[in-house]
Amino acid sequence: MSAKKKIFKPQPVSGFPEWLPEVRAVEQQWFDHIRKIFESYGFCNIETPSVELLDAIKAKGGDGEADVDKEIYVLERYHKEDGDKEARLALHFDQTVPLARYTAQHFNELVFPFKRYQMQRVWRGERPQAGRFREFYQCDIDVINVDSLPLHFDAEMPAIIWEVLSSLPGMENEKIQIRISNRKILTGMITQDLAIDEPTAIAKIFRVIDKVEKIELTEFLKSLETVIKEFKPHATEKEIENVIKLLGFSREFKFWDIGEQIQSLEKIIEEAKIENDFVKGIEELQFVLTSLKHLPKGSVVADLSIVRGLDYYTGTVYETVFLDDPGYGSICSGGRYDDLASNYINKNLPGVGISIGFSRLFDRLRQQNKLPVGRISPADIMVVMPGEERRALTMETAQKLRAQGHKVETFHNPVKLARQLAYAEKKGIPYVWFPPFEDGNDHEVKNMQTGTQAKADPDNWKKD
Amino acid sequence: MSAKKKIFKPQPVSGFPEWLPEVRAVEQQWFDHIRKIFESYGFCNIETPSVELLDAIKAKGGDGEADVDKEIYVLERYHKEDGDKEARLALHFDQTVPLARYTAQHFNELVFPFKRYQMQRVWRGERPQAGRFREFYQCDIDVINVDSLPLHFDAEMPAIIWEVLSSLPGMENEKIQIRISNRKILTGMITQDLAIDEPTAIAKIFRVIDKVEKIELTEFLKSLETVIKEFKPHATEKEIENVIKLLGFSREFKFWDIGEQIQSLEKIIEEAKIENDFVKGIEELQFVLTSLKHLPKGSVVADLSIVRGLDYYTGTVYETVFLDDPGYGSICSGGRYDDLASNYINKNLPGVGISIGFSRLFDRLRQQNKLPVGRISPADIMVVMPGEERRALTMETAQKLRAQGHKVETFHNPVKLARQLAYAEKKGIPYVWFPPFEDGNDHEVKNMQTGTQAKADPDNWKKD
Repeated sequence: MSAKKKIFKPQPVSGFPEWLPEVRAVEQQWFDHIRKIFESYGFCNIETPSVELLDAIKAKGGDGEADVDKEIYVLERYHKEDGDKEARLALHFDQTVPLARYTAQHFNELVFPFKRYQMQRVWRGERPQAGRFREFYQCDIDVINVDSLPLHFDAEMPAIIWEVLSSLPGMENEKIQIRISNRKILTGMITQDLAIDEPTAIAKIFRVIDKVEKIELTEFLKSLETVIKEFKPHATEKEIENVIKLLGFSREFKFWDIGEQIQSLEKIIEEAKIENDFVKGIEELQFVLTSLKHLPKGSVVADLSIVRGLDYYTGTVYETVFLDDPGYGSICSGGRYDDLASNYINKNLPGVGISIGFSRLFDRLRQQNKLPVGRISPADIMVVMPGEERRALTMETAQKLRAQGHKVETFHNPVKLARQLAYAEKKGIPYVWFPPFEDGNDHEVKNMQTGTQAKADPDNWKKD
Repeated sequence: MSAKKKIFKPQPVSGFPEWLPEVRAVEQQWFDHIRKIFESYGFCNIETPSVELLDAIKAKGGDGEADVDKEIYVLERYHKEDGDKEARLALHFDQTVPLARYTAQHFNELVFPFKRYQMQRVWRGERPQAGRFREFYQCDIDVINVDSLPLHFDAEMPAIIWEVLSSLPGMENEKIQIRISNRKILTGMITQDLAIDEPTAIAKIFRVIDKVEKIELTEFLKSLETVIKEFKPHATEKEIENVIKLLGFSREFKFWDIGEQIQSLEKIIEEAKIENDFVKGIEELQFVLTSLKHLPKGSVVADLSIVRGLDYYTGTVYETVFLDDPGYGSICSGGRYDDLASNYINKNLPGVGISIGFSRLFDRLRQQNKLPVGRISPADIMVVMPGEERRALTMETAQKLRAQGHKVETFHNPVKLARQLAYAEKKGIPYVWFPPFEDGNDHEVKNMQTGTQAKADPDNWKKD
């Protein structure tokens, strides 16, 4: 084995992050925290395979979000034999396509409304570039029902997300804001005011509006005018201004509390001469806001410029930003869709969902040194090994402490005490336990932070 | 969107398992349970990316376990542009190759002995065939040190694994057995008795011995004779018989307790006229067994026919079988290796590790209906919605219960009570909570199993 050694210098693969144990420990805390809150609202967990059939994934990938199609990773067996006929598989690029397939496939075995959360890796095979992940975690919650889905769930999503994001370890001091709109509002206005009602045209206009916070204002206004005139060449300045006004109007909402926002939306309805979905969209938005009144001022706002880039949203839409850095983009987004699984099943399955961009969020805080410091070892206690003849006693002591729920390492060899203590120190283990070095003596335990050492009973001991 | 609908009948992809929520709930229990025990021994967690560089993975994949090379999944970007020069990436087929790379790459930032556990999916792109997973979870623990690694850790592995496997939900009544040997024993014998010392020859003999439980005895003996004669054409019948005797001898151990096994190994040393690693291997095996004396009779046995197929093991080796179905193969295996990361770094990094074939084990119990029945919803309580005007009260009640650590669903719409109760029933939610239907009334809670209903305080309530 050792004759012809070829050394591969180990190197990180661009876009595929990994963490040291002490950072991973915090990542685990985050997952535990999110899971706990999702479950406290009655969401069950599922996992789907990492792959879907390429044909199925392509159908969705190309559906509006044009870029995603390019980002698909396809699997190939390295030593595929000629004649092996297999369906091509691709790694999923989100958790929504797999959810749609899962719901359709297990339709008869699920209880609806189907409330599930999913925390898995997804993959996007982008060209390698600085700061973009090609493998990352998303944490999604969605509710899917048959035929119709109560607005109740549109309102529940932001409440859950606010609870999660505002309490993640390290996030306590971050100012975040959940921005909510309803696509029916803009759709209704564009349909009536501009007389544009072709879904693909509206989708294209939405994709321009979606960029409002990512580009310069003058550039944005120019793009908006261009795209409107593409579908309505003779649009008047007034007509275009009406759209801009609606988009810009809600900017002011951000300084109001939710009650004021709801009142202001009321006024829009009164003044509107629009009779279609526009009013319905505002009413739905009001319903959602009403149920979020208990949240702190500024945590949730109506923002009529929120549309999301994806085609499949049909009502409520959500985005979440850092208030001091909205240009970083949304860290948690989603919305309502009318029939997500129509690709797979001849049923009407409306849903609403939201997805935390877990890795992007986690890595941002990591880079800004805002994460709590994680433990190198999970152990609370290291049991010293006094001598080879006391190995059995050492192991037995550790087992007694474990039986009481403590996490315990035993030192592996009876070397000098100073070396054993140095190991505990380096691994950040807070207590060192000394079994009796001679028969008849007592057990003792040392608090590594305070330095105090005291007699202790391995069958009955509690941390300070 | 709905104009030209193409329906893809959703179907499972062969070899990529997924579970219903109630089965996944049990899978989560299993992961939590394993994590808790691994951490109680002071093992930290890491995760590595799903991919490694193809070149690095190939080097290991082809190293002895010839089949693995064929099973590598390579990634391709679906819309790769001509001229994109990127290193080829492959999904990892185990967690040992990534661990070696990780340890070498982060060498200066890790504290040694580095004790880590890892519970991730791995992929093997086999030809699709019934019952073989192409994506599955493994749960590994390994300890790696610089230059030398105390035998202590070889002894700790089976103790941890026994604790895990004997207490997993659903495994309590399964009779499992951990079988341990040390490769030095057979290597020493083959080297001295048969004068075969070429490592590749010994590896080839080991690969035959590894099949002892998988094929007919007569076929096995013939293969063994053939492979020995390949390297020592004039081997006498006596010489071959000596090997067979050693392999077969330890079969009897399985009926003895660990103390008797140790004594019997002592005798082998006394009678042996072999002076090389053979004796060392038996002494190491005795050390490991000595520290496992507290385990139930039959849970751990010395079995000198255990060698493992992989080339890189150099000392202790482990396998774990169902005693009533040893032909199912090992559900948890591993061993000691001298220099796992020599591919990546110019350091001597010996280690010892063991891996639970999680998905194979879980799915076996699932198919045999031995798993506990999981919950469809994690919620403990469903709060009834008395009427639209009491929606806020319903939500508030749920929040109060959550604040005390309960998992709570609110029913989404004020429909007839019978329908609300039917939902709780279908989701298996054990308690239904009634907020006051009129002002001045009390909250009440109903135990769905016993049918009893009683007044209750949402700020202060405990499950029966």
